[in-house]
Amino acid sequence: MVGTYRVLADVGFDGLTTQRVADAADCSQSLVHYHYDTKEDLVVAFLEWVREAEGDYLEGLGEGSAEDRLRAFVDLQLSIPRDDEHGWFNVAFLELQTAAARNDRYRDALREFTSMVDDVLVAVIEDGVETGEFRDVDPRATARFLRYALHGAVGATLTLHEDATEAVRAPVEAYLEGVVLAETD
Amino acid sequence: MVGTYRVLADVGFDGLTTQRVADAADCSQSLVHYHYDTKEDLVVAFLEWVREAEGDYLEGLGEGSAEDRLRAFVDLQLSIPRDDEHGWFNVAFLELQTAAARNDRYRDALREFTSMVDDVLVAVIEDGVETGEFRDVDPRATARFLRYALHGAVGATLTLHEDATEAVRAPVEAYLEGVVLAETD
Repeated sequence: MVGTYRVLADVGFDGLTTQRVADAADCSQSLVHYHYDTKEDLVVAFLEWVREAEGDYLEGLGEGSAEDRLRAFVDLQLSIPRDDEHGWFNVAFLELQTAAARNDRYRDALREFTSMVDDVLVAVIEDGVETGEFRDVDPRATARFLRYALHGAVGATLTLHEDATEAVRAPVEAYLEGVVLAETD
Repeated sequence: MVGTYRVLADVGFDGLTTQRVADAADCSQSLVHYHYDTKEDLVVAFLEWVREAEGDYLEGLGEGSAEDRLRAFVDLQLSIPRDDEHGWFNVAFLELQTAAARNDRYRDALREFTSMVDDVLVAVIEDGVETGEFRDVDPRATARFLRYALHGAVGATLTLHEDATEAVRAPVEAYLEGVVLAETD
């Protein structure tokens, strides 16, 4: 899995082959094929691994108030590095997401990934609504809107090299203040 | 250009070749190469053509109030068809956008495209701020946030087959009411 990550960061999704993964993992291609019949099987297993890693990463939201965790979520999603290995992995991951338009198995695996992310965010929002920190918003609709806005900004940063992840912070803040967080006066 | 559109809708961005464009345009491959030295030149010219077409399309925002035009913009961006020629073209266009991560010329052409879209939206928002229909928001930041949110929703619809373009309507409305449109009471 770490080998797959490195190959994706190095040569992108189009360049991913089981031979390259074998080289990166310092094993034989036949061993890779022993575990994963096809490249598609490898990618699906990799997406499950990434989902678990992202789940652990989202533990980084911490134990604070719902507002703190919501802001930490936004920060985590927008802290996309560029020009290093993880930045190039993110480009490859975007390529994989695009490939899901034509591949049912990638689509199913990625839907499980986004469901997991949504569930984490929904739990935060439900918590905030319950404690009165947030207004009475629809948790799932709000989570999805935020995911789309942040994902759109990350995509524009990675593909168009817009300063999107920075530029979007003020409007996201305006959204949180104007729609989600309880009014304070 | 229409031939290029059809080839993209038919076989996707990876399948785009000057031979296929020649076949779709019912001309010789050498004629295509007479106008466009490389496939990359063809793609860049195509993106200029799409930008002009999108500019004409955005004329469809009409001459109404700023609020009407803003809502019309949201509707136009979210009315993404699926499973027909234009839906598959949109998938190919997303593939092209993803390819811009590794291609400076596609990136530059796409940045001109998104600048044009932003300029249209900024003009609407400036107008609304001036007439008092809108609050005193930052027009460009607001335009970009909306573009990212709508683009993220369209991408999730096209790649993950989420019902994103429908699901996002209520949260977009909440954003417009809570942040952009002037308070009415």
